[in-house]
Amino acid sequence: MTALEKQAFTDLLENKQYKILRQNLLDLEPVDISQLLSEVPQDDAMIAFRLLPKSIAVEVFDHMDRDLQNWLLESFSDRAAKAFLEAMLPDDRVELLDEVPAMVAKRLLQILSPEQRQVTMELLGYKEKTAGRAMTPYFVDLRRDMSASQALQRIRDLSFNRETVYESYVMDEKRHLLGTISLKDLVLAKSDTRVLDIITPDPKVVSTNTDQEEAARILRDNNLLAVPVVDMEGRLVGIITWDDVADILETEATEDMYKLAGITGERVFGPLRMSLRNRIPWLSINLATTFLAALVISLFEPTIAQIVILAAFLPIVAGQGGIGGTQTLTLVVRSMALREISGKRSSYRLIRRELYLGILHGLLMAIIVGIVAFIWKGNYMLGVVLGLAMLGNMIVAGLAGAGIPLLLSKLKIDPAVGSAVIVTTCTDIVGFFLFLGLATAFLKLLT
Amino acid sequence: MTALEKQAFTDLLENKQYKILRQNLLDLEPVDISQLLSEVPQDDAMIAFRLLPKSIAVEVFDHMDRDLQNWLLESFSDRAAKAFLEAMLPDDRVELLDEVPAMVAKRLLQILSPEQRQVTMELLGYKEKTAGRAMTPYFVDLRRDMSASQALQRIRDLSFNRETVYESYVMDEKRHLLGTISLKDLVLAKSDTRVLDIITPDPKVVSTNTDQEEAARILRDNNLLAVPVVDMEGRLVGIITWDDVADILETEATEDMYKLAGITGERVFGPLRMSLRNRIPWLSINLATTFLAALVISLFEPTIAQIVILAAFLPIVAGQGGIGGTQTLTLVVRSMALREISGKRSSYRLIRRELYLGILHGLLMAIIVGIVAFIWKGNYMLGVVLGLAMLGNMIVAGLAGAGIPLLLSKLKIDPAVGSAVIVTTCTDIVGFFLFLGLATAFLKLLT
Repeated sequence: MTALEKQAFTDLLENKQYKILRQNLLDLEPVDISQLLSEVPQDDAMIAFRLLPKSIAVEVFDHMDRDLQNWLLESFSDRAAKAFLEAMLPDDRVELLDEVPAMVAKRLLQILSPEQRQVTMELLGYKEKTAGRAMTPYFVDLRRDMSASQALQRIRDLSFNRETVYESYVMDEKRHLLGTISLKDLVLAKSDTRVLDIITPDPKVVSTNTDQEEAARILRDNNLLAVPVVDMEGRLVGIITWDDVADILETEATEDMYKLAGITGERVFGPLRMSLRNRIPWLSINLATTFLAALVISLFEPTIAQIVILAAFLPIVAGQGGIGGTQTLTLVVRSMALREISGKRSSYRLIRRELYLGILHGLLMAIIVGIVAFIWKGNYMLGVVLGLAMLGNMIVAGLAGAGIPLLLSKLKIDPAVGSAVIVTTCTDIVGFFLFLGLATAFLKLLT
Repeated sequence: MTALEKQAFTDLLENKQYKILRQNLLDLEPVDISQLLSEVPQDDAMIAFRLLPKSIAVEVFDHMDRDLQNWLLESFSDRAAKAFLEAMLPDDRVELLDEVPAMVAKRLLQILSPEQRQVTMELLGYKEKTAGRAMTPYFVDLRRDMSASQALQRIRDLSFNRETVYESYVMDEKRHLLGTISLKDLVLAKSDTRVLDIITPDPKVVSTNTDQEEAARILRDNNLLAVPVVDMEGRLVGIITWDDVADILETEATEDMYKLAGITGERVFGPLRMSLRNRIPWLSINLATTFLAALVISLFEPTIAQIVILAAFLPIVAGQGGIGGTQTLTLVVRSMALREISGKRSSYRLIRRELYLGILHGLLMAIIVGIVAFIWKGNYMLGVVLGLAMLGNMIVAGLAGAGIPLLLSKLKIDPAVGSAVIVTTCTDIVGFFLFLGLATAFLKLLT
């Protein structure tokens, strides 16, 4: 959206030129309208939103971010809110209800029609981030005795309220999935072909409590348009469609990135309160660990008292270790999420690999810092001590960076959450111990 | 893949039970076969791969990771390699040629048929990571004078080698796009309807040099199955399909994550040489900046000589600043990638927001460290100095964490690449200056 368009929007609104404003809005795609509305003050957005015909408004609403959706819903009358909720697809509705404050969610659930409420409640019964939660129950189901032309007719009849018609599902009387058939194959088939003869039998399915990320990967890796979701009794209860996959994978990537930095669940313009609640625990845990590091340094106070310049080198040893550890850690955590690491053998291979890299990086960094320290302070022993500490710490960085996420995941702890603080604590403490310990041991040669 | 299956695989191979092995492999989906082959020694993978019928082998090959693909291609005869390359879709082939060593790529291009080579060369003419590179030139094109039934017939005729038949493209004589039509709408239409009457006119298009991430977002935000790609003259030259979008967005997320950690372009089991080449520049730049920090500390040597315990608190001030800065930075860089921040107004809003957070975090951390330092060392002035330095540094962390990526992106520099080192350098240097500077100013009260 250009600044000009936003300016025109504001001008029209201020001059109460609602008809022209409405016409201008309708020239835009729904996705662009919601973009525009998210960039103007909320009260202006509300007025503009009310100008839209309902069919467009629903689409615009669908594209808005949650904050704006919540705000609009809260200010709607019950009747308007009901109309919007019912026009949304069940999985989008669940996602929305999941994020509005509990009181609002309760009110919204109450105003849904009994039928809609049931669908929503059923979906809400599945745990967050499972396939059951991400699926839509609106898919095309076919009977096994149908012909291709009967199937096409059913698709025509149902198409207006099914999320995708490009895959249909053939089930037996107990709603067990016999196979899938694509619209393409139905179009290509002769009209009297029995669907049972052209289905893809035994398709990939996921269970309602499969992790949504897993389900998304299955869909993507098999280039499917949709993946069927079955319940505990093996009955087909919904599908996850291609258009949700990119969202799911991108959201999971964002989450992993945020977890690594200790800002899980944040949004860039979310309430300050939420940011504080998210970041302070991480800052506090890290504070506790840096106090540990400080304690290590304080053990060597007598050494530092004799060679004060050692203090200047402390951030170098710890800093490089921390950076090396974070490099390894980021690679490992992301590769685990992408399923590039699996099995015992690749764990060993990974640790060995990062150990080698740690040694090589360590040797290189040791030589550089050793030489720089020698040139700067004219003390060759200072260079040796600093270099050895650096070598040791880079090795620890490689081992901890690879080993700790692997260990956490073995203990069923999310490696993205805890690894960073553990790895940097290791490199801080080992780095200070090595550097100051070696300095103490070679004290006579240093002074 | 379970350990048992791998064991069975190895046993069959060792006992040269090739027939049974082949049968067992064919019971698996192609994606699972390639998973299995990636987990066994490469020579075993090669033997097993040669057992597969060609049609399956092509699919298995498609799902493999690049390393294994390269290795297989290098060990193929020219004829086998040619068969594989030609069976791949053009965009997958380009992606592969892009990653094999130049010599191999040259050989592979030479063995393609002239026609295939031309398609590939044309695609390769577009810059990396553009829509031109990611698109496939194999789409269903319709003439404007066709009826729905003629269009369906053309889809039936073409379907075997088109990447998707779910969207078709109606063009005029000069290959300008008039509109798109979905298979669903064709199926729903009466057979004598003119396609021109039921197309979606003026669809969203991207240009060949549009960033592939941008194109993927357009496809996703509009819930499209494919987005058309036009050249400089506005002629339709290809489409990007839904199954590429998740890959593109996930790859871009991984890249941003890796860039933030200074490991751009790494792969978890890639060659060591490549990891060294990727990580060493980052380690070296960071080393240079920590020497700057060391220089700052060395300026205050006389102060530290008088109050040695100050050295122990150095990592606390710098560490918390670094963590606070990284939290803000990660949020900002990711939100920029997700297009959640755009325009001058949101930049100001963001900086103001992070400034507030920095002040609040700073006050909280200042109180905690102040009290702990006082209890630990029984020196209230030490607590005050440490607390003030912490407050100042958290404010700098918020401002730099938000401001530097915004500034870099304004200067057209990728904010994911440079921000982390600049932000931590700021917090290191400001933190040490504040802490040791205040300590020097209040030296009398401290001793």
